[in-house]
Order: sequence, then structure tokens, then C-alpha cells
Amino acid sequence: MKYDLIIIGSGPAGYVAAIRAGQTGLKTLVIDKRYIGGMCLNWGCIPSKTWLESAKLYNKIVKQSADFGITGVDAKKIGFDWKQARKRSSDVIAKLSRGIEFLWKKNGVEFLKAEAKIISPTEVEADKQIFETKHILIATGSRPAELDGMKKVLGVEALANSDSLPEKPIIWGEGPVAYEMLQFFQLLGREPVLALTGEVLLPELDESLQSFVQRKLKKEKVTVVPAQKIRFDGEKAFIDKQEIEYDTILNCSLRKAVLPKSKVELQLKDGFIEVNHSFQSSIPNIYAAGDVNGKSYLAHAASSQGLAVIDHIHGRNLDVDALELMPINIYSDPEIAQIGKTESQLKAEGVEYMTQQYSLAANGKALAEGASEGYLRLIYEPKYSQVLGVQIVASNATDMIAEAALLLEMEGTVYDLATAIHAHPTVSEVFMDAGSQAVSDLEE
Amino acid sequence: MKYDLIIIGSGPAGYVAAIRAGQTGLKTLVIDKRYIGGMCLNWGCIPSKTWLESAKLYNKIVKQSADFGITGVDAKKIGFDWKQARKRSSDVIAKLSRGIEFLWKKNGVEFLKAEAKIISPTEVEADKQIFETKHILIATGSRPAELDGMKKVLGVEALANSDSLPEKPIIWGEGPVAYEMLQFFQLLGREPVLALTGEVLLPELDESLQSFVQRKLKKEKVTVVPAQKIRFDGEKAFIDKQEIEYDTILNCSLRKAVLPKSKVELQLKDGFIEVNHSFQSSIPNIYAAGDVNGKSYLAHAASSQGLAVIDHIHGRNLDVDALELMPINIYSDPEIAQIGKTESQLKAEGVEYMTQQYSLAANGKALAEGASEGYLRLIYEPKYSQVLGVQIVASNATDMIAEAALLLEMEGTVYDLATAIHAHPTVSEVFMDAGSQAVSDLEE
Repeated sequence: MKYDLIIIGSGPAGYVAAIRAGQTGLKTLVIDKRYIGGMCLNWGCIPSKTWLESAKLYNKIVKQSADFGITGVDAKKIGFDWKQARKRSSDVIAKLSRGIEFLWKKNGVEFLKAEAKIISPTEVEADKQIFETKHILIATGSRPAELDGMKKVLGVEALANSDSLPEKPIIWGEGPVAYEMLQFFQLLGREPVLALTGEVLLPELDESLQSFVQRKLKKEKVTVVPAQKIRFDGEKAFIDKQEIEYDTILNCSLRKAVLPKSKVELQLKDGFIEVNHSFQSSIPNIYAAGDVNGKSYLAHAASSQGLAVIDHIHGRNLDVDALELMPINIYSDPEIAQIGKTESQLKAEGVEYMTQQYSLAANGKALAEGASEGYLRLIYEPKYSQVLGVQIVASNATDMIAEAALLLEMEGTVYDLATAIHAHPTVSEVFMDAGSQAVSDLEE
Repeated sequence: MKYDLIIIGSGPAGYVAAIRAGQTGLKTLVIDKRYIGGMCLNWGCIPSKTWLESAKLYNKIVKQSADFGITGVDAKKIGFDWKQARKRSSDVIAKLSRGIEFLWKKNGVEFLKAEAKIISPTEVEADKQIFETKHILIATGSRPAELDGMKKVLGVEALANSDSLPEKPIIWGEGPVAYEMLQFFQLLGREPVLALTGEVLLPELDESLQSFVQRKLKKEKVTVVPAQKIRFDGEKAFIDKQEIEYDTILNCSLRKAVLPKSKVELQLKDGFIEVNHSFQSSIPNIYAAGDVNGKSYLAHAASSQGLAVIDHIHGRNLDVDALELMPINIYSDPEIAQIGKTESQLKAEGVEYMTQQYSLAANGKALAEGASEGYLRLIYEPKYSQVLGVQIVASNATDMIAEAALLLEMEGTVYDLATAIHAHPTVSEVFMDAGSQAVSDLEE
């Protein structure tokens, strides 16, 4: 049995690549030792957003329902049933998982639940069989670094399978996952502590967004401590001599590559599979896409890399620039989203730029929603007025950023934003407002 | 005292034009006999969206909170306090109203609360004074046709000032206002009856959206009757011999122009002030923008017309095409939005087109939000693959349509949608999904 492509791992890099591979006539086999959909579908993006939606509703009921005119809610009696919230996310996962299986079948993609081992550049072993193939795509993802020697540690995957929810967790880590999990517990009225493993919480964000988050954490009196300053004595944790109360350490550490078993030696870089611009490893017919190549931890980056691999197999050139325009979404409250260049990147590149920030405080729809905390910020260059970066803080920033993604992909300008008529009342009017203000700044 | 511009009416045509006029150095006076912000701010777009947000939260608490894992909610005890919901909308109105006043002052715009009368093409009388001006902008808006001879009639403006909320209203009218008010009462669990004054409820929408609404009303067992078939006997209403129970007739009839008092005769068309492409009336220095000229009932259409008038006063050419790209938003549940051409328009114009519809049923974020009813539909022409029209049904369609507005303004193609990387998981991914599907249809 000879395949055109064997994909190891079925997360957003693997399953999306498999569908495209099947659609474009490649005889394709997907091998995954665990769940279809990988981390993203089973204990990452999808369940965490489902939990966050539950927590946001909980918070809105407790904090805003009286103001909205809803009666009969006794805020003190409102509680959170984690098992039910998990059941809902399991239902969502099951539905999406069936969807992937359906699309695989429809496009002739085969699936084998087993652990794969690369035997040679054209052979993969799984379930005691050897499968021959022209190409291999490694899409095995990543998992958080282990927290050695610490007690009461729980990973997000274990949380997804746990019947109980920590009351007072230490969120240990950095990056969007750490911030989202922190916000999840905050929204539920619990008092999580943030043990920061890096210098800053969200290093990939523009400094303006970083400051927003810092101010917010301060205002909400969240305890933020550098992780390396925490000293453990058995199950107890201390900063200097002050004990930190906690019941769980939620491991949101930066993730390391999950490497497949392999008799073929692949070149690594910092523990990740090193790839070129076409996502080829040091063995040209073995590709690596998604977290495992260390280029990004974003699900949509993984999917677009996976698609690029299929294009490359078909001999199509990649538009590497397009792959750099990756929106970064954080499903906090309010949500945070960014695309394109940050100020510090442009400074480092020596590119001249201007910025325009427009608040949501006077946005009619945001006020109607009771969610006017936030702003939109444009970074654009003054010569052609092209927009180079967009940052958004808004209750729905993660969907609003799509407009910015399209703008940047089409190399649009602040004039385009000012000219495109945005409906009233919408939160997205802030694009037009900021664009118009930028136009008048340019014309002054 | 001589002005460059006197604006009569301070709704979205008038107040936006006034700000731009002030910013661009025109000595400007706004005259309004009633509230700053006109219908849109005071009893139209803004308060109705505020009420709808309250009703959507009420509905979500009653119908979905248990599924989301929220405990301590007794659905039977949940009620709706209309006075409080109104208080919240009044707070929003007050905030936005202060914002307009601030921007007027900042830009040197004067305001007079009085009834205006046009004395000559260069003179306006108000508050017993005569003001001279180079240009006049009539932005006096519209109001629903009166329902003569009927009892228990309430207009939306009166509802906004009423302490009690109808239990069983007849929604009398057609168009987005009628559908939104119908949905408002439905969301609150009341049983409104729709008395349809036109042949269809939402004639400006593409047939596919119209069918969606029709199916939905049928599924939700809403009583829809042709208004002209209702016979009144005193306070009682009948269809044939069947009595229709109701406590209020909510007047959502199509609106007629509100014409200012004028000694100058302006040419009318169907009761609206007739204007040319530059929004000039039959007297060239008297402009009319917004509902009063009969071109559109949309607030953002009014604002963009108002801005176009200021441009014209400064001798700038209008891009009339851009003004035709008006998103139409309906804040129902789920929301409905449309921009660009409908199928019937393209058929009438003899333009070749293709369509691509993509459901939200397998959209991860929509499922996480518990709001996966809906779809996105692209209409594009096969030669250059340019997108000509977009229709969306989604819980957040009214903000999502902004991406489509930008796409159409930039004359983008289905390839642009397929190439712009949309973040995962987002509802907006459906743009990329539909775009990719359209691309593969084109390449087949």
C-alpha cells in the first residue's frame, strides 16, 4: 500500500492539510495516537473558548443583569457547574470531530489511530504495519514543559478531564493560554495568582496592548509574581516568608515540541524540527507544520502551514509574506487582538510610521452592549498611508480583527477604512472613525 | 450674523455633517426643535439596540444559562424590568448626546434649540431671529405614517417614553424596525402579532435572507397577518370572525419625510425632498440629506450623505459609487446583515454571477458561543471573481458585515477572502471558508 502523503498528528496543521490533500487527489493517510483534532479541538482552543463563554455569561449575569433590567436573579445564589460546562464543551468537540471525520471520508482520506514511527524517508510504521509513502508531514504539535518537583500540578488537558475546578489556582506560565486561564478564574469570581515564567505576560503583543493588560491586572488587584521567586516547601508555596494560598498549580508553561518516534534523524533547533520556507525538514520529503516546527503556537498558523505544504507537494510557490500576516487573538474580557507589525518591530526595522488610537467610550453599539472598554489602534506609514498593523481591545475584538486581516492582505490604506461605509450602530465603526482621523492627520 | 451653513435637524445626517463642517472651517449653526441626535439617538437605533441587548440577555439567561453551567437561576422567576432597561438606554443616550455637544463645541459649531423656518435660500428664522447663511442643509428626517382611526396605537418614540411595556402587541408595519420590535417581544417570551403592511417584511433583502426570516417566523409560530385584512370594531381587532387579542398596536409603518417649515418651495417626489447626486434640492444652495430625501432610511446612509454635502460645499467631487455600498443591518436573533447586490438586482441587470453559501453549523467559535444558527453567502462574478454582494446570518452579523463592506469598497475577490488568514476559532472564519470554497468552484 503506497501513499502520496502520510500525516502524523491530526491537529489544525494535520487535519486541515489532510482535507486539502484529499481534495487535490493525494492518496493520504492520517495517523494519530490520540484524538482527532489534536490539542486545539480536544483540550485547547475550542474547549477553552467554550469554558470562557460560560464564564463570561456567569460574570454578565452576576455583574450586569440587574442593570440590563433582568429581575429574579439573586447574584449570591448564582453558581458555576463545571461538570455541565465541560459537558457542553464535550458536545461541541464531538460535533466538530464528526465534522472532520466526515470531510476526511468525503475526500478519501484514511485514518489510523496508532502511534507512528518514521522508519525511513518513505516508510512509516504504525499498528505493526509498514506504510510506504512519497511524503511525510509531521504535525505532532507541542505540549507544556513539565513542572518537575512541584506538587498539585494540573495541565490544561488534565483540567479538561477533571470533575472539579480549582478554587484558588496558581496560573503558572506566560502567553495567551496563561492570560486566558487567569481570566477564566477571574470571571468566575475566584482569585487566581499569576506566577509569571517570562519577563512579560504577552511578549508578542505591541507594547500598547501589554500596558493595557498590565493596567487591568493592577486595577483588578491580581497577584502577579515572578515564578522563579516562588519557593516551595512540600505542598506550601512562599514568596519570601509570605505564604501563597493555592489548591492547584495550573501549568500554562511555554510549550515544547512533541517529536514523533523516528529512525531518521531530523535537524532540530531549540528542540523543534527545523524547516525551510516551504516547511521542509532537513529531509526534503519530510515536512513539519504547526507547533512542532517552532514557528508559531497559533492554530490558524498551523492550518495555513499545513495548506502550504500541500501546495508545495503540488509544486506551487508559496506566498511567504501572506503567511506572516497572522492575527493573534486572546479571548479575555475584553478580548484582545492584533495583526501585522508592532511599534517595536517597525522601530527595529527603521520604518517611519504614525499611529491612531480611537476609544470605544463613545461607540453607540459598545455602550448598548454594556461593553465600551477598549479601543482600536492603527499603525500606518505616512507615505502611502498603508496600514501596517492593527490592535484591538473590545468585547468582540477576536472577530473584529478579521477586517484588519483582510485590509492588510489587500495592502489597504487608512483611506480605505475611512471610505468603506460601516453600518451604524456597530462596534466596527471604530475602524472608520480611526481611519477618518488618520486621514485628517495626514492631510493637515 | 452670517453663517456658511445652517443645518436643520441634528440626527445622523445633521450632527455628523456639522462636525465635519466645523472641522473644515465652515461657520456652522445647527437648529433642532427637539433632541440632539434626532430619532437615531433618542428613540431609534441606539435605544432600540440597548433594549434588544437587554432582551437577548434575558433570553439567554432563561434558555441557555443551564446548558452553559450556570446554576442558581430559576427560569420561572426571571422577569424583565422595562423601566430599568429604559433607564440604561437613557444613560447611553445622555452619554452620546454629551459626546456630540463636546465635538460641536470643539469644532466651533453653534446649536440652537428651536423650530426653524426657511425664509429664503439664504435666510432661516428660528427663535424669532433671522439668520443669514450661504448654504442650508435640511436633515429633518422622517416619522412613521399615522394610523388614523385606530385605537391603542403607540409609536416607537412613545414606547421609549412609556413606563409600561405591552404584553401582547400587534406590530404594525414592515421593514427592519418592524422585525426588530417583533423580535424584541419574542425574546422576552411575549407573543406579538405581526400585521404586515407590505407584500413582504424585508423587501430590501436578498430573497435568500427573506426566506430565512419566513422559515424562522413559521418555526416560531408567529402570527403574521396582512394588515389590510384586519378589521377593527372599537378596540377589538378581527381577521374574518376570529378576534386577535392585543393590548397595543405598535406603529412601525414605513416613514414619511418630516419637512421643515419653508417659504421657499422645494421640489418634492412622493413627499420627500427631491435631490440630485450631490444632494442639492431644486434650490442649489439648499441641500437635503438623510431620510428626508427618501433615498434611504439607514443612519449610516444619512451620515455619509451629510459628509458628502460638506465635501460638495468645498467643491470636492463625490464618489457616488462608494455611497451605494450601504450595509443593511437587522439586530434580530440571530442578526442579519447584507451589503452590495442582491440576486434579483443582478438578474435585472443581466450580470452573470455565482453564489457560495457556508453554514455556521460546523464553526467552532459559533458552537462555543451556543450560537451556530446562520450562514454567510457570497455573490461574485465568475470572470474576475470579484465579490458583488454578501449576506450574513449570525449572532454578530451586524459587526461581521464590516469586513464585507471593506472587501466591496476595495473591489476584492473571493481569492482575497481565501488568502487573508482568519484567526481560529472565530465566527469570521466563515469568510475564509466560503472564499476557499468559491475558489475551488472557480478552479474546477
